[in-house]
Amino acid sequence: MQRGSEPVDMRASRYHIATLKEAPADAEVVSHRLMLRAGMIKKLSAGIYTYMPMGLRVIRKVERIVREEMDRAGAIELTMPIVQPAELWQETGRFAKMGPELLRIKDRHERDFVIQPTSEEVVTDIARQELKSYKQLPKNFYQIQTKFRDERRPRFGLMRGREFIMKDAYSFDRDAEGAKRSYQIMAQAYRRIFDRFGLRYRAVAADSGAIGGDLSEEFQVIAATGEDAIVYCPTSDYAANLEKAEALPPAGPRPAPAQPMVKTPTPGRSTCAQVAELLGVPLARTVKSIVLATDELGERDEIAATRIWLLLLRGDHDMNEVKVGKLPGLERGWRFATEAEIVEHFGCRPGYLGPVGTRKAVTVVADREVAVMADWICGANEADFHLTGVNWGRDLPEPDLVADIRNVVAGDPSPDGKGVLAIERGIEVGHVFYLGTKYSRAMNATFLDEDGKPKPFEMGCYGIGITRLPAAAIEQNHDERGIIWPDAIAPFTVVICPIGYDRSEAVRDAAERLYAELLGAGVDVILDDRGERPGVMFADWELIGVPHRLTVGDKGLKEGVVEYQHRRDGAPTPVPLAEAASWVRARLQV
Amino acid sequence: MQRGSEPVDMRASRYHIATLKEAPADAEVVSHRLMLRAGMIKKLSAGIYTYMPMGLRVIRKVERIVREEMDRAGAIELTMPIVQPAELWQETGRFAKMGPELLRIKDRHERDFVIQPTSEEVVTDIARQELKSYKQLPKNFYQIQTKFRDERRPRFGLMRGREFIMKDAYSFDRDAEGAKRSYQIMAQAYRRIFDRFGLRYRAVAADSGAIGGDLSEEFQVIAATGEDAIVYCPTSDYAANLEKAEALPPAGPRPAPAQPMVKTPTPGRSTCAQVAELLGVPLARTVKSIVLATDELGERDEIAATRIWLLLLRGDHDMNEVKVGKLPGLERGWRFATEAEIVEHFGCRPGYLGPVGTRKAVTVVADREVAVMADWICGANEADFHLTGVNWGRDLPEPDLVADIRNVVAGDPSPDGKGVLAIERGIEVGHVFYLGTKYSRAMNATFLDEDGKPKPFEMGCYGIGITRLPAAAIEQNHDERGIIWPDAIAPFTVVICPIGYDRSEAVRDAAERLYAELLGAGVDVILDDRGERPGVMFADWELIGVPHRLTVGDKGLKEGVVEYQHRRDGAPTPVPLAEAASWVRARLQV
Repeated sequence: MQRGSEPVDMRASRYHIATLKEAPADAEVVSHRLMLRAGMIKKLSAGIYTYMPMGLRVIRKVERIVREEMDRAGAIELTMPIVQPAELWQETGRFAKMGPELLRIKDRHERDFVIQPTSEEVVTDIARQELKSYKQLPKNFYQIQTKFRDERRPRFGLMRGREFIMKDAYSFDRDAEGAKRSYQIMAQAYRRIFDRFGLRYRAVAADSGAIGGDLSEEFQVIAATGEDAIVYCPTSDYAANLEKAEALPPAGPRPAPAQPMVKTPTPGRSTCAQVAELLGVPLARTVKSIVLATDELGERDEIAATRIWLLLLRGDHDMNEVKVGKLPGLERGWRFATEAEIVEHFGCRPGYLGPVGTRKAVTVVADREVAVMADWICGANEADFHLTGVNWGRDLPEPDLVADIRNVVAGDPSPDGKGVLAIERGIEVGHVFYLGTKYSRAMNATFLDEDGKPKPFEMGCYGIGITRLPAAAIEQNHDERGIIWPDAIAPFTVVICPIGYDRSEAVRDAAERLYAELLGAGVDVILDDRGERPGVMFADWELIGVPHRLTVGDKGLKEGVVEYQHRRDGAPTPVPLAEAASWVRARLQV
Repeated sequence: MQRGSEPVDMRASRYHIATLKEAPADAEVVSHRLMLRAGMIKKLSAGIYTYMPMGLRVIRKVERIVREEMDRAGAIELTMPIVQPAELWQETGRFAKMGPELLRIKDRHERDFVIQPTSEEVVTDIARQELKSYKQLPKNFYQIQTKFRDERRPRFGLMRGREFIMKDAYSFDRDAEGAKRSYQIMAQAYRRIFDRFGLRYRAVAADSGAIGGDLSEEFQVIAATGEDAIVYCPTSDYAANLEKAEALPPAGPRPAPAQPMVKTPTPGRSTCAQVAELLGVPLARTVKSIVLATDELGERDEIAATRIWLLLLRGDHDMNEVKVGKLPGLERGWRFATEAEIVEHFGCRPGYLGPVGTRKAVTVVADREVAVMADWICGANEADFHLTGVNWGRDLPEPDLVADIRNVVAGDPSPDGKGVLAIERGIEVGHVFYLGTKYSRAMNATFLDEDGKPKPFEMGCYGIGITRLPAAAIEQNHDERGIIWPDAIAPFTVVICPIGYDRSEAVRDAAERLYAELLGAGVDVILDDRGERPGVMFADWELIGVPHRLTVGDKGLKEGVVEYQHRRDGAPTPVPLAEAASWVRARLQV
């Protein structure tokens, strides 16, 4: 038996319970409002919060679950410094490349440092010093550590703070195959972690950037208020984020032209929606024009040439910038064209642009959907005029490029061919990512392989937003009275509410006995011994969101019962006092 | 049963064990060298270390003990931000007053922030917002959090780093009496904490600065290499640090003069030791002169007047600056006099100074010991000359002030009158301190007392150097082979060393069974399955300092035994294989 492992006496009178009737006006989202009102966090500065006792209990439970599953998956915990020397960040170029969200500081000797937003550089530096041989691989190092990102506009409390806690893990492997195995081990560990949190979530395929392949997944907690759109197929296990989800080529062929091309006056109608309304046609008959530019740099980094691109999307579709950024010719960066460039190439200002009869040559990229349209409507490159009945081949050449450049919409066919797509909203709280050799090559981090030759590590990185998770949990689980925590991450699992603790000896005795019994059984229980009126007491615990409540009152005790109520229950259930402890324990999910 | 509470499989082959034969040359102290060699820490920048897996395990055990005892003592954990806005630090004046060890930074909006070295300002800000009524008191908030102090000369590894982890607690009370109670609760909790660490330590009275009283104690881990001198009485429970320990007034009266005062040539002898040697007398017969100055400032902060002080100490005694700083007239700050000031007042350069016949008036402060001396020796205020046979009253006036201004030495009487003092060395790893209303008044942090009037909080602060403690433990517990951890904070409590794990099935089977048995019993055990040669394997674990080792070899197995060896044992003890697990468990102290 380890000393110190006895349960800690938890009485509301000695703990710090500080609920608020109102949240400050600048708290825009429900999780922010409820965490402030429940006394879980306290603002110190924009995006910088103290984790108050009640909130820290939640964070610690999140940490513990993450730590246990990372350990179980064979990852090894260490702690890298918060203040990191700029030299390492210069090796990868991130010191210069990252924007002001990277907080740069100088020490007393005017040496440059950063406050870590992540630790790729430091962990790669450790690996190149410590992992000399293939025999030491694979290795996965993780930390649960404070991070700082100097957001331009921190908001939503812990959802988008500047100072936050993240679990970041980094795997090191001999080869891509090993790295993919390490990636899968982490992806599985993440599923166990999110299962244990007791939240509804989806692991969705995410864009893996320049590396390609499918080795990037986001773990999204489902919430109507989420910032991210999640695409999934209800009849299969397909799930991806909006950036990633592919819009399949339309099934049918392009219909034959049925209408002549006609220049139609559309005075003051500069958007597809306005034009469709004026002409009385569905929005899906219109085509929107988006003009991009790419610059070729000369020897002295001056702009040597600029190419103008015309992207065509159906009027009811949105451009997907990630997909656009992967088109041949656009992979190295693009920008929206300036108005001067547009006028120069189209002879017209934005609002009435189209691919027919441009003044100068532009590269035309048609979305897959647009490429099979007939008799469509687009701008006439003349202010206040559109063209109707436009047809590929007849009125203009076939597009230079046909590609998937739009966001999918609900009802689109699922890329796996097993149904149609639905969209819901989520909050990203985890990400697993195959990095390849991006950092190891930049930092010359190699090991000696079996053949005696140095090779760069194949890496992966794996993050969980420890302090963001409670906020996401609340966005998913709350009602008008407050938070509803899943058992696993509740600040307390059970609260005992005696009515008249300060007046009735019978109530006090029964409550104390029940409390001692649950505490002794290892249940995370708090006894509200403050002697507050029932209304105030219940409102506090409903706001704080403790999932299980036992109410002890004189009235019930006369009949030998106490009342059990789950935070989601509409009404209490009477339970015999003698069975109350085991009754509650049977209802706990942890 | 909680999910995830199963023990984690710990095999050396999958863990990260990275011992070094040699430590870098800049590692000056044994704990720094051994932590680097054992792979517990890794330097990232001066005074900034990664806590490597093996070291982090120790730190986590230290944290857990501290957290359990703080919780048990009723302190409430929260986490305050690392990046703190300057405004709060300006309220107490510390933003301007603290030197460059306070790391100041600007965010993207050019607003001033600091990286917390401690959190008095933030916690007092929380208290003034959250603790409105005397009914909410007492409260004690603590955190275990990363701190930063931009030391000019960081060194000794975790002993004096720039980034480090500290447990800092802050108590809030209605009145001084309550604050003293909170202080005592913390002092007791600290004793439990340090008892559990399994280290030899002393709680010593420390100077409490301007507040007075005895409400400041340091917790010192005893180590010959410690920076601090600890004064204690072997026959009583008196213990204090050197700054604080009082030198009692000498018991006997001043003897009558026996010698005439004589001006004696002491060419080139400018120190007491040289003079005593030349004259063939004990050093204790000489008196050293130390000249201080205090400046009185005028209305525009210009120096309006300067007063010169002559401090007289026995030649074999050292000045105690803390005691000097409390003398009337010196409490508001003093400095050593410049050579010009000395020449102006004494007519002589340093080396031959004394209180007899100064050129200008100086305030003479005699140490208690000097005040009862007769026939003493001091400088003649003339180069190359000293006076012998000097006597108070006869040769010069009685001193303006007699006071305790020296460090005690071994053999001095104990201030509690119960024996004589001894001195040993220690490393400060904890401090409990009664703050009074210093911060609450500066920040106008008040609560409404029972009488309806606002009163400032009475505060205390309580620190433990979480990352310094492992270093102190090593300074106390090591030998030529490496570290010797106490059970409570060892990275692993037990290591199983199979000889020929990769060759012998019998060894592998026995080792695996023993491992599974200990793991199942909740013992913190690691199995060295690397298949290293015994010499390498033993050297690794002796360097790392795991206290209990079980060696499994073919030779022993033939007789049904394995070998147990404590890290301090000179030789192994054979133990029957079947009893080995319970045999080890009986020897564990945790």
